Amino acid sequence: MILTFGETLLRLTPDNPYERLASASQLKMGFAGAESNTAAALARLGHLVYHVTAFPENLLGDAAINSLRHAGIQTDYITRSGDRIGAYFIEAGASLRPSRVVYDRAHSSFSEIDAGHFDWKEIFAKKQWFHISGITPALSPACDETALHAVKEAKQAGVTVSFDFNFRRTLWKDKSQAAKSFDRLLQYTDYVFANEGAVKDVFDIGIFDGQDNAENAAEAIRALQTRYGLKGVAFTLREQYSASFNKWSALACIGGQFFYSPVYDIEVVERLGGGDTFGAGLIHGIISGWDPGKILGFATAAAALKHTIPGDIGFLSEKEIFSVMEGNTQGKIER
Amino acid sequence: MILTFGETLLRLTPDNPYERLASASQLKMGFAGAESNTAAALARLGHLVYHVTAFPENLLGDAAINSLRHAGIQTDYITRSGDRIGAYFIEAGASLRPSRVVYDRAHSSFSEIDAGHFDWKEIFAKKQWFHISGITPALSPACDETALHAVKEAKQAGVTVSFDFNFRRTLWKDKSQAAKSFDRLLQYTDYVFANEGAVKDVFDIGIFDGQDNAENAAEAIRALQTRYGLKGVAFTLREQYSASFNKWSALACIGGQFFYSPVYDIEVVERLGGGDTFGAGLIHGIISGWDPGKILGFATAAAALKHTIPGDIGFLSEKEIFSVMEGNTQGKIER
Amino acid sequence: MILTFGETLLRLTPDNPYERLASASQLKMGFAGAESNTAAALARLGHLVYHVTAFPENLLGDAAINSLRHAGIQTDYITRSGDRIGAYFIEAGASLRPSRVVYDRAHSSFSEIDAGHFDWKEIFAKKQWFHISGITPALSPACDETALHAVKEAKQAGVTVSFDFNFRRTLWKDKSQAAKSFDRLLQYTDYVFANEGAVKDVFDIGIFDGQDNAENAAEAIRALQTRYGLKGVAFTLREQYSASFNKWSALACIGGQFFYSPVYDIEVVERLGGGDTFGAGLIHGIISGWDPGKILGFATAAAALKHTIPGDIGFLSEKEIFSVMEGNTQGKIER
Amino acid sequence: MILTFGETLLRLTPDNPYERLASASQLKMGFAGAESNTAAALARLGHLVYHVTAFPENLLGDAAINSLRHAGIQTDYITRSGDRIGAYFIEAGASLRPSRVVYDRAHSSFSEIDAGHFDWKEIFAKKQWFHISGITPALSPACDETALHAVKEAKQAGVTVSFDFNFRRTLWKDKSQAAKSFDRLLQYTDYVFANEGAVKDVFDIGIFDGQDNAENAAEAIRALQTRYGLKGVAFTLREQYSASFNKWSALACIGGQFFYSPVYDIEVVERLGGGDTFGAGLIHGIISGWDPGKILGFATAAAALKHTIPGDIGFLSEKEIFSVMEGNTQGKIER
Amino acid sequence: MILTFGETLLRLTPDNPYERLASASQLKMGFAGAESNTAAALARLGHLVYHVTAFPENLLGDAAINSLRHAGIQTDYITRSGDRIGAYFIEAGASLRPSRVVYDRAHSSFSEIDAGHFDWKEIFAKKQWFHISGITPALSPACDETALHAVKEAKQAGVTVSFDFNFRRTLWKDKSQAAKSFDRLLQYTDYVFANEGAVKDVFDIGIFDGQDNAENAAEAIRALQTRYGLKGVAFTLREQYSASFNKWSALACIGGQFFYSPVYDIEVVERLGGGDTFGAGLIHGIISGWDPGKILGFATAAAALKHTIPGDIGFLSEKEIFSVMEGNTQGKIER
Amino acid sequence: MILTFGETLLRLTPDNPYERLASASQLKMGFAGAESNTAAALARLGHLVYHVTAFPENLLGDAAINSLRHAGIQTDYITRSGDRIGAYFIEAGASLRPSRVVYDRAHSSFSEIDAGHFDWKEIFAKKQWFHISGITPALSPACDETALHAVKEAKQAGVTVSFDFNFRRTLWKDKSQAAKSFDRLLQYTDYVFANEGAVKDVFDIGIFDGQDNAENAAEAIRALQTRYGLKGVAFTLREQYSASFNKWSALACIGGQFFYSPVYDIEVVERLGGGDTFGAGLIHGIISGWDPGKILGFATAAAALKHTIPGDIGFLSEKEIFSVMEGNTQGKIER
Repeated sequence: MILTFGETLLRLTPDNPYERLASASQLKMGFAGAESNTAAALARLGHLVYHVTAFPENLLGDAAINSLRHAGIQTDYITRSGDRIGAYFIEAGASLRPSRVVYDRAHSSFSEIDAGHFDWKEIFAKKQWFHISGITPALSPACDETALHAVKEAKQAGVTVSFDFNFRRTLWKDKSQAAKSFDRLLQYTDYVFANEGAVKDVFDIGIFDGQDNAENAAEAIRALQTRYGLKGVAFTLREQYSASFNKWSALACIGGQFFYSPVYDIEVVERLGGGDTFGAGLIHGIISGWDPGKILGFATAAAALKHTIPGDIGFLSEKEIFSVMEGNTQGKIER
Repeated sequence: MILTFGETLLRLTPDNPYERLASASQLKMGFAGAESNTAAALARLGHLVYHVTAFPENLLGDAAINSLRHAGIQTDYITRSGDRIGAYFIEAGASLRPSRVVYDRAHSSFSEIDAGHFDWKEIFAKKQWFHISGITPALSPACDETALHAVKEAKQAGVTVSFDFNFRRTLWKDKSQAAKSFDRLLQYTDYVFANEGAVKDVFDIGIFDGQDNAENAAEAIRALQTRYGLKGVAFTLREQYSASFNKWSALACIGGQFFYSPVYDIEVVERLGGGDTFGAGLIHGIISGWDPGKILGFATAAAALKHTIPGDIGFLSEKEIFSVMEGNTQGKIER
Repeated sequence: MILTFGETLLRLTPDNPYERLASASQLKMGFAGAESNTAAALARLGHLVYHVTAFPENLLGDAAINSLRHAGIQTDYITRSGDRIGAYFIEAGASLRPSRVVYDRAHSSFSEIDAGHFDWKEIFAKKQWFHISGITPALSPACDETALHAVKEAKQAGVTVSFDFNFRRTLWKDKSQAAKSFDRLLQYTDYVFANEGAVKDVFDIGIFDGQDNAENAAEAIRALQTRYGLKGVAFTLREQYSASFNKWSALACIGGQFFYSPVYDIEVVERLGGGDTFGAGLIHGIISGWDPGKILGFATAAAALKHTIPGDIGFLSEKEIFSVMEGNTQGKIER
Repeated sequence: MILTFGETLLRLTPDNPYERLASASQLKMGFAGAESNTAAALARLGHLVYHVTAFPENLLGDAAINSLRHAGIQTDYITRSGDRIGAYFIEAGASLRPSRVVYDRAHSSFSEIDAGHFDWKEIFAKKQWFHISGITPALSPACDETALHAVKEAKQAGVTVSFDFNFRRTLWKDKSQAAKSFDRLLQYTDYVFANEGAVKDVFDIGIFDGQDNAENAAEAIRALQTRYGLKGVAFTLREQYSASFNKWSALACIGGQFFYSPVYDIEVVERLGGGDTFGAGLIHGIISGWDPGKILGFATAAAALKHTIPGDIGFLSEKEIFSVMEGNTQGKIER
Repeated sequence: MILTFGETLLRLTPDNPYERLASASQLKMGFAGAESNTAAALARLGHLVYHVTAFPENLLGDAAINSLRHAGIQTDYITRSGDRIGAYFIEAGASLRPSRVVYDRAHSSFSEIDAGHFDWKEIFAKKQWFHISGITPALSPACDETALHAVKEAKQAGVTVSFDFNFRRTLWKDKSQAAKSFDRLLQYTDYVFANEGAVKDVFDIGIFDGQDNAENAAEAIRALQTRYGLKGVAFTLREQYSASFNKWSALACIGGQFFYSPVYDIEVVERLGGGDTFGAGLIHGIISGWDPGKILGFATAAAALKHTIPGDIGFLSEKEIFSVMEGNTQGKIER
Repeated sequence: MILTFGETLLRLTPDNPYERLASASQLKMGFAGAESNTAAALARLGHLVYHVTAFPENLLGDAAINSLRHAGIQTDYITRSGDRIGAYFIEAGASLRPSRVVYDRAHSSFSEIDAGHFDWKEIFAKKQWFHISGITPALSPACDETALHAVKEAKQAGVTVSFDFNFRRTLWKDKSQAAKSFDRLLQYTDYVFANEGAVKDVFDIGIFDGQDNAENAAEAIRALQTRYGLKGVAFTLREQYSASFNKWSALACIGGQFFYSPVYDIEVVERLGGGDTFGAGLIHGIISGWDPGKILGFATAAAALKHTIPGDIGFLSEKEIFSVMEGNTQGKIER
């Protein structure tokens, strides 16, 4: 049984392909968040996954819970409190035009939890894995405290902890705050999923020059692992040619050894949630007891496939992911 | 030239007819607010109307301005400030199921203006009419102050002031606050548009028992007019049989004399914005110098027609409204 | 085998229920016209129906032909000529707001046919019935000539002729023109489908005062029948309470005897095409050799059902229509 | 904890309001079934509800499970077997045009279960209530056997059994088969939800003449109750004026005493699932230990509200239903 | 006059681009099948084409016929029998994610025809060409018999026969069955349209290693032609880089000589129906009496264009296809 | 303050991506035209822009004005006259299939203006820039006269004139007419925006062989500039690989010196309006007083971005365009 913890937001995006918000008259409505995206992918892979979050007691909170349930996520630990659900609006980019996100998450139910909001002792009972990301501590001091409290409790309960090194510049007053917070959390963390840019930004580790690079990434992984005694660290490598075409791969150091995935060419449908699915793939592989190369290969293929699915969630079966790992990347129709 | 002042919100409503938010996957996106709805109807009737409000400096603020311009509203006095646009979600009711609104307007750009945000001296230059509603003072103490400041400046500038007696229970801590605020504003007001329920709630004037009634309404109008020395007061009368069928009429006291409109049977498409269009009709009639009976008849017919149009805005030509006033209520096709 | 002759137009209407054109961003696209609507209903009732018209040689002309074929209409006699397809835009009304039609049909391929455009001798070969309406002669002098030429050829070929007394005020310079044209056509006509208002407008026959009335209608029918020696005349009777609710019935004089249909209460989905389906019902009944009461009852029930279907076309099976005739008007679900 | 058992079907219906299948190009996709509709309504009312059914192991089976989870239903006992999911297509009627259902459910995974498909001993552990309907035994001899087996096991496990007396003529070879099957099931049933027509059809009980009637219904209820020693029987009473307008009420005999609900006027959005929500309301009331009058009132109000919601499922909170019971049927907007 | 024979299925696909079935709420509805797709393309190219198939007598059968007529196909020989229309659901792939098809075609009206269902003598009267595919014999023993019977009758009637070597693995119990069936049919066939993989699978002819290759294809074509004395054999060559990008070409042996088409780069919109349009292009070219190089070029260009059109059908004019043959593949806008 | 002058058309395009008109049932509705597209882009960049055109006095004319206002364009000089709005239908191409436009603009309100329709003296008061295109003079002799009259008045009023060298072959009887008209207009023009093909077609200047080429373009620019003494000439260079992928760059001669933009790789969403946005970028740069290299770079980047936005209008902020100029073409997500 897996636990994920973090904010799930109302997601709104123009219904017409590539339309800008300024001229949209219809929006697709969904619910997403880094950690619940990972939870959804894990549920699809057969795990019993509980997502811990808070929603307001209104029609949108109801809709959010329905949506998580649709994805197969257990909602038992979700509280109803606060005044509003955090929201974000996405304008999908294409070619040389970037996707743009407008966040409207301040004052959300989740960001306004107080430090003792969740009963972690009860929540961790019988759980095996706890997954958080760097977004939660950025949302409020209480969120930061709660995240720290949670990973400590997890450790105490013998639960494995993974941390997605998500760094959202606009959510932090300055980088030093993030560095302080992440540093505390990483003391209790077993696995880290990250990329060069974020690690460079927060800890000034590595020699990132704007482009992901396997060699530099390995350097940074080694530094992270040494500093925090992590069981495993995995970095994604994205070569972004345009909003419509990316190359995608990953490397990981698990058990002191480095592993490299193949590089996938991707005509992008939606890249949001790619990293979250990568994390889900890693957790699935580790729990499944696979060898590290297979774990990394699985997570990379899963995340590559995610880029071909609209929305944030990688609703993907193990079989589909294995097929890509076996080299079936030509998109041959399956009847 | 007419001025309206108040918050314009992002409006989101399920795209499928009568669908509930809990199961919606597509939302219609629009922008609406009591005062800008009135402004839109007035613009359609040929007036040069400026709406004064504040939007955040983001893609949604851009979209809001585009939307007001689409409706023919002048946006010169709109400021870009604050962090977010206020929003509301509507679930359209049918038959015995009520429409439900979820407001998400706290911390909006408009509600967080400070008292000196707008340069009213400049804004009132060459204007003829100023229209506000009871929603604005409810949004924050600074909004309350700003509204008061604005009506005072309007008086000083010789601008006619109309006040839509909108009372939103959930926006006020208690009724006495609303009473105090409205009382101050009405000192500077020429025309009031209201209904029995709101006046009873705020001022405990009238003998409202849950159902609009012309006789009781006349009583309340007289009391209001006496207390504030108003040039005119108009009340709408709604007999609500179901969310799908209403009867709609109005009465007014203008120049000391009472006028009564016909009663319209309405198969309701959307009732939101009915009162706002009623106000627009009154303002249009008064500015046009019509006799009071025609003014009231026009406003009532306009508002009745609004109920047949989706969205908040009564985009209606004078000709269409006149046609209903002349008795063309059978909906005969026009080719 | 049945022939219909007339213009088929591109029909565009806002996709959102009851939305106005001024704010629409999506339109439903279809193709319709009085005579091809009748043809479609007849095809659904099992007849081999050929529609004679003209479309431009472009992608819209292709789409129009596909659409007629979809409805089961034979398109062998359709010519490709001229520059554009005629079009109309409909804004669906509700309650006291009327539906509005914007025509954009001038200079269409059909209206610019010349008098000898169609080879009527060939077209009438082996046909049994020819149906036209009062719209065609209004479109251009050549259309007027062609219509006259066609009914004469029909008579000569022993083909029964029906005329739908459609009178579109805006298409004629003055009524006397229509009167002259219709008068010529009726010399060669066997059956007329009309209503009081149109007959009063064109021929000043009857005592129509704005409301359909069975007694006055009978008077007008008698006058028409006498003047032109018609085999049958049927009038629809519409009591229009609002755009959303109508009562609908009909009367006919066939073989010198009067017949009256039941009156149907109709919550209107779309009334366009009601009269066209009425005509189809009559033609079907007459060809089927039914007794006059059944013919009228069938046509009235068919047209009543049409009001519950979006679009112009009454795609209705005989069985469905019979069911209404048998009194099944409660809309009980059929599984 | 509540159990429901029965087939859940793929539901497909034209996306445009009132469009016919013959001209549709877009369909709304959902999943529904009498028993899972009841389960969904119960889940929304706060119960832990497990639905027992079978889906094929394909993408549609996945989608069906997601959909049930969205509605809050527990899917633990759903098996994946067989070749296809049963489906039905609905064409929504309006006014005098009936809604039409095309079933395509033969050879479905559910209908092809064998008698020992489910492990009822395990399923009934710790459950309180078991709900089935008359549709299940109609689907195949094995379904009939399984239903009987299930109610027997329920009785043995001390679980309360309710039976929705759904009789689908087209699913049975002849009525006597249904009578035999229902008779067996009712031996083990505590509560029956039905209407006059179905009971008359299957058991020839009552004097139903095509129109529901409270007096006759009471007669039939008494007969049913006597014959099977039922704890309670509730009948719905539908006065169907058209597909768009119904009157709706109910009566019940619980504990030997008769109770009558108010009569609700309903402008119908969708009537499918009305009876299923009625059943959910009754089960909720009985489990809640309310007095019989309140139980019946709640169920009737819930079902009335269901008619205003598109789709099969009455996603309704207790608070909303109570509000209608308190007389709030005017559809006044809630902000 | 051309005849095509085979099953036409209800086609359902998520409305949102690239959405998965598991999260879809709207589906596009259409009707398609290998042989009727070919018929549609031929009708667009100006041929009188009759499609022979069977549909159930319900609303979906009606819709299917309307859809075929929309495409210009003659429906005179379509029978109404059986219980259900076969269906398939497609989830469109993108990039490295394959499109997935869920078939739900068992027990369909077409698959349950009996051997004497169609009156082939009457059907073949005055026909010139008969086109079938390898799907039909796979559907049931009676379908297999009927296909064989049909080609024999075709031969006897002097009608040219073409066979699309469609091999659907999941429809056959084992390959030997397919081999036996195809072998029988090919005795009466003039032209075969195929690809290396299918021919290798069924007859173990060629040295296909997973990638189409012109040299190997030529080998296989020679073998086929020799074995069955065919007038012509054409193979498509698909280089599949991803679901979004393919290279497409073809080769053919006609009159003992080999012809090779150019290779087209294709950004894929939908590849379904590509082969069916290829067949239509070949038939059109052969009937037109073109030289073999032009025939092959035309068919290849037509099929390439088909990949840019959503749905199964290549609705393409001769002029559009000629333009591509002339090298206009840059997609320059045509005004 | 900027003036643009030209026809704005109703734009209709199938709603489903890449669907053909022949099978479309829903169209997106918008309003566009070369000059108002430029106006819209300029308004977004912060300019006060007035568009001069004519619309009919009907619901579509209202909608057109709303749409221009939505884009931020001033509509004060728009007249309401004539009978119909010009329209065009677009079928979006993909890969090797071209986009196709069906124009239906004959007899439009704009094309039927008479020579003295607009009061240019009043219109040019206080204006700084006047922009027209080669489409206007093609629409009618009066349009040609009016355009000439306008540029003369502009010159006299000291207003800078830019001319977009749009040449629509199908709108002119022969090229010599266009040459004559353009020649007259260029006498009064300061800046010309063009491409090789158009200039070759109209004036037979340059050595265009079907492919844009910087060297040849420079030659043609020099010739144009010499002949008409222009302040600046800019040519776009499009390398069209397919409807889905283009390379895009530009060169300009301003102040006697040549400037070359970078070349952008573009996955095309919609190329219509690319040139219009290019013009807007140039005008914006020139008015801003930037150096020529920056002006050209800005315009080219703006136009490249336009290709990624559906519809005709490049709704783009200065900041977004600067970002591309700075090399941010990888489409990295902006949060």
